[in-house]
Amino acid sequence: MKRYRNGEILDFEQEMPVLGDKEVILGLDGGTTSTVCVCMPFLNNASDPLPDPLPVLARAVSGCSNHNSVGETAARETLEEVMADALAKSGYSRSSVRAVCLAVSGVNHPTDQQRIINWLREIFPANVRLYVQNDAVAALASGTLGKLHGCVLIAGTGTIAYGFTDDGREARAAGAGPTLGDWGSGYGIAAQALTAVIRAYDGRGPNTGLTSIILKNLGLSTPDELIGWTYADPSWARIAALVPLVVACAEAGDVVAEKILSDSVEELALSVKAVVQRLGLCGEDGKGPFPLVMVGGVLEANKKWDIGKEVINCISKDYPGAYPIHPKVEPAVGAALLARNFLLKELCREL
Amino acid sequence: MKRYRNGEILDFEQEMPVLGDKEVILGLDGGTTSTVCVCMPFLNNASDPLPDPLPVLARAVSGCSNHNSVGETAARETLEEVMADALAKSGYSRSSVRAVCLAVSGVNHPTDQQRIINWLREIFPANVRLYVQNDAVAALASGTLGKLHGCVLIAGTGTIAYGFTDDGREARAAGAGPTLGDWGSGYGIAAQALTAVIRAYDGRGPNTGLTSIILKNLGLSTPDELIGWTYADPSWARIAALVPLVVACAEAGDVVAEKILSDSVEELALSVKAVVQRLGLCGEDGKGPFPLVMVGGVLEANKKWDIGKEVINCISKDYPGAYPIHPKVEPAVGAALLARNFLLKELCREL
Repeated sequence: MKRYRNGEILDFEQEMPVLGDKEVILGLDGGTTSTVCVCMPFLNNASDPLPDPLPVLARAVSGCSNHNSVGETAARETLEEVMADALAKSGYSRSSVRAVCLAVSGVNHPTDQQRIINWLREIFPANVRLYVQNDAVAALASGTLGKLHGCVLIAGTGTIAYGFTDDGREARAAGAGPTLGDWGSGYGIAAQALTAVIRAYDGRGPNTGLTSIILKNLGLSTPDELIGWTYADPSWARIAALVPLVVACAEAGDVVAEKILSDSVEELALSVKAVVQRLGLCGEDGKGPFPLVMVGGVLEANKKWDIGKEVINCISKDYPGAYPIHPKVEPAVGAALLARNFLLKELCREL
Repeated sequence: MKRYRNGEILDFEQEMPVLGDKEVILGLDGGTTSTVCVCMPFLNNASDPLPDPLPVLARAVSGCSNHNSVGETAARETLEEVMADALAKSGYSRSSVRAVCLAVSGVNHPTDQQRIINWLREIFPANVRLYVQNDAVAALASGTLGKLHGCVLIAGTGTIAYGFTDDGREARAAGAGPTLGDWGSGYGIAAQALTAVIRAYDGRGPNTGLTSIILKNLGLSTPDELIGWTYADPSWARIAALVPLVVACAEAGDVVAEKILSDSVEELALSVKAVVQRLGLCGEDGKGPFPLVMVGGVLEANKKWDIGKEVINCISKDYPGAYPIHPKVEPAVGAALLARNFLLKELCREL
C-alpha cells in the first residue's frame, strides 16, 4: 500500500478552477466499520433557523478510521482520503474550508485528540478551525442539530453514553469495549446468547431455544462447534450480527433470551443514568427536560421486543424529563453542524 | 520460517546408534503458552505399582501448539519438533516408541482429534499406538497417575472442568474461551476487575480499591487509559496476570474485589458440579468418593484469600465425597501415563 505524506492526497486541488468565495465546512464521522465525510456551506448567520432539508454539497465514504483497529498511519490516510474526496466532489478546495469537525471512534483521551489535531494542522491552512471529538459527540449533534446539550446513547456493535451541559461540561459512560464490560451492546447481547447455549449444553445453565436458532443460523450441528466458530474470526461485528436471533427468540417467549435482553436494557439505561446524574442534566428536582438521542441498530430494531423503547421506559422512571430523539440526519452532518456552532461561538467571542 | 514435511524433523534418527530393545512412551502436554514432551520407559507390567519417583528419560519444551492460536501448520511443527527433541535427548528413535499420547489445548471436537491422529499416523510406524486428547485430560491423569476417573478443574488464564467415569463416559464444562463466558478463569477475574474500575470511574458502579492498585501497577494515571491499554495487546495472559492484584485487594477488605472472587469461586465450582452431575461421579446417594484434581495458577495461589480452598468448600457442600488432589507430577507425565494405560488396556483386550 502506498503511503502519502500529510496533505499529499489533497494535491488534486492544484488543477481545480476557483469557484468563488463561498465558504464550506467539513463534518466527518469515523467509525469502526466506515467513515463518512460531508461538505456543507458555512451557514454564517447565527440568528437564521437552519434550512430544512440541510444543504449537503457532497458526501464521501471510506473504510475504518479507528486507530485502535487499523493503526495510526492507515487511520490518517483514510481520514485524509475521505476529506479530499468530499472536497473534490463539492468542487471546493482547502482554501474554502472554514472549519473541520472530525468525530472519530477511538478518541477516548485528550492525548488522542491532540495527536489528531497536530496532524490536521499540517494539512489545513492556519486559519481553518479544527475540532476533534469522539464519534458519539457527532451522533448527539445529529439529534440536536449541532447543539451540545443532552445525552446520546449509541448501541450498535458497541455501546456508549455521552452527555453535555450548556456550560460545557461533559461525561461519558461505557464505550470501553467488550473486555471492559460493555454488556448492553450488540456484541454483549450476542456473546451472552452464545454463552447461554454453551452453558445449557454442558449443564451449567437451563435449556434455551437460543441453541437451535443459533446453530441453524450458523450451519453448525452441536454447541461445542461454537468454540471453533468464535475463535475462527474474533470480529465483534460478526458476533453482534446475531442480535436479531436473540430478539426473535425472546419474542417467542424464551426465558433465557428475555433475561439477556432485559439485562441489556438495564445496562444501557444505567449508562445514560450515570451520565445524567454526573452532569445534573435533569435539573435540581430531577424532573428537568433534556434531549436523549438514540442511535444504533440495537435501539432501532423496532420489533415487538423493542429494546430502545424499554430503555426509554427504564430511564423515564428516574428522569421523567428525558425526551427521546431519533435523528433524521446522519452523524457526519451532526459533525458538520458542530463545526459550524463551534466556529460561530468563536467568532462571537471575538466580537 | 522453513516448513517441513511430516516426519522430516525426526530424520536425525538415521545417524543414531541403536540402543537396544527398550520400549518407550511419549507424553505431550500442549498448551497456549508452552508445549512439554516427556519420554518414559514403557512400564509393561500392569500389576507392578508405579515406581516413585517416576522414571523420566528425557524432557523437551517448546512454544504454543494450540492450532486455534498459531494455525495448524505452525502447531504441527511445534509438536513434531518437541517430540523429536525429547527422543533425541533420551537416545531412542521412533522405532522404540510403543505409544504416544498428545494432550493438546484446542482439541474440542472429534474432528480436531481425527485431524491430529491422521497427521501423527504419517510420522510414526503403523504399530505405534496414538492417542489424542484435550490437555485437560493429561492434567487429570497427572493427579490420578494415569487413571481416567474423577474430575479435573483447571483454572489458569482459562478454565475447564473435565470428568471421566470408569466405564469410559466423559463430560466437560466451560473451556470455551472468554467470548463464551469462562468467567471463573484468571482472564475472567481480571477482566471483571478492569470493568469494575471503569464502572466506578464513569458512575455505573461503586468505588473500589482496585482502581489505585491496578493503575499503579500498570503505570497509568486515569481509568480511561485502561481502554487503550486493553486494545494495545489483546493477549489473555497479559490480562490474567492481574489476578494477584485482585486477591491482594480482596484481602485488604475491598467489597468489589471480594465479590469478583466469590463469583469466580461459584463459577468454578459450578463447572465441576455440572460434570459430576452429568456423569453421576458421586454415586447414587450423591456421597460417593471421587478424585478432584486441582490445577492452575488461580487455584494454587495459596494466599489468605484462597480461591482453590473456597472452590473445594463450595463443591463439598453438594458432593462431600470429592477428595482434592494437587498433582505432584506435570501434565506431560500424566499424558505419558495415559498412553501407558491405554496401551496396556488394548494389550489386555487382545489376550
